[in-house]
Amino acid sequence: MRMDELDSGACSIARAVELVGDRWVVLVLRDLFNGVRRFDALRDHLGISRDVLTKRLADLVAAGLVERRGYRDEGSRERHEYVLTPAGRDLRTVLTALMDYGDTHLAGPEGAPMSVRHRDCGAEVHAHLVCDAGHDLQSQDRTTVVPLAGARVR
Amino acid sequence: MRMDELDSGACSIARAVELVGDRWVVLVLRDLFNGVRRFDALRDHLGISRDVLTKRLADLVAAGLVERRGYRDEGSRERHEYVLTPAGRDLRTVLTALMDYGDTHLAGPEGAPMSVRHRDCGAEVHAHLVCDAGHDLQSQDRTTVVPLAGARVR
Repeated sequence: MRMDELDSGACSIARAVELVGDRWVVLVLRDLFNGVRRFDALRDHLGISRDVLTKRLADLVAAGLVERRGYRDEGSRERHEYVLTPAGRDLRTVLTALMDYGDTHLAGPEGAPMSVRHRDCGAEVHAHLVCDAGHDLQSQDRTTVVPLAGARVR
Repeated sequence: MRMDELDSGACSIARAVELVGDRWVVLVLRDLFNGVRRFDALRDHLGISRDVLTKRLADLVAAGLVERRGYRDEGSRERHEYVLTPAGRDLRTVLTALMDYGDTHLAGPEGAPMSVRHRDCGAEVHAHLVCDAGHDLQSQDRTTVVPLAGARVR
């Protein structure tokens, strides 16, 4: 079957990019992974307008990727911080794959800006394509795509 | 060091989303991976306007992710098809991670729409986080991020 005979929208990539196919959303998620949780800290770090950040966070909360929590510094009014839900944390593989891509293809002369480490052992973490038979796919390895029950013919 | 003390733009995720942080770009790349290469076939499959597709393909060519090639069907004028470059093919891990996310969190009652298979052995392929010590990280495993030479203090 040719792939263009299948409905473009009945696709897990299409559904995932409805959630995260936006530059600001990805950068907000990155900062949440890195422990930047407070609205003002996110706004300052990202250089994003208040309105855009408010909208992106509301979308992430509505999608179940982020939870909003109240906190109150002594003497201040209540403010909010944002924490990844388990579903949000599952995007770690996507973000690490983007980071690996940027490290390989887009880094400046100083090299990679960051390293993700496995907390248990300290070794660097990267996103790999691994098949269920245990092969770690390299760039020259080829893949094919097979429609399953969730596919829809156009 | 707190992550919000580092320049948000000197980051491989930020650089990668400059390239692929757009819903249409990801869907065009997906179709190119799946062998849909011709302008009219892409346009028809994605339901995208001619202008938007032209702009996204031009951006992908300028970024070195896609190569434009001429072809001519018998009796027709020359047309163009689009092929991933090696740098474009390296986005396979990103797209597979998005697909895995969508399969897990966003699939309908019919289940996953597609399966990616390792052509050599036929087994399903997924994106995994693997550390250089060989541990296959699960969702409960924790990671930390360490700045390297490419990071910039704000």
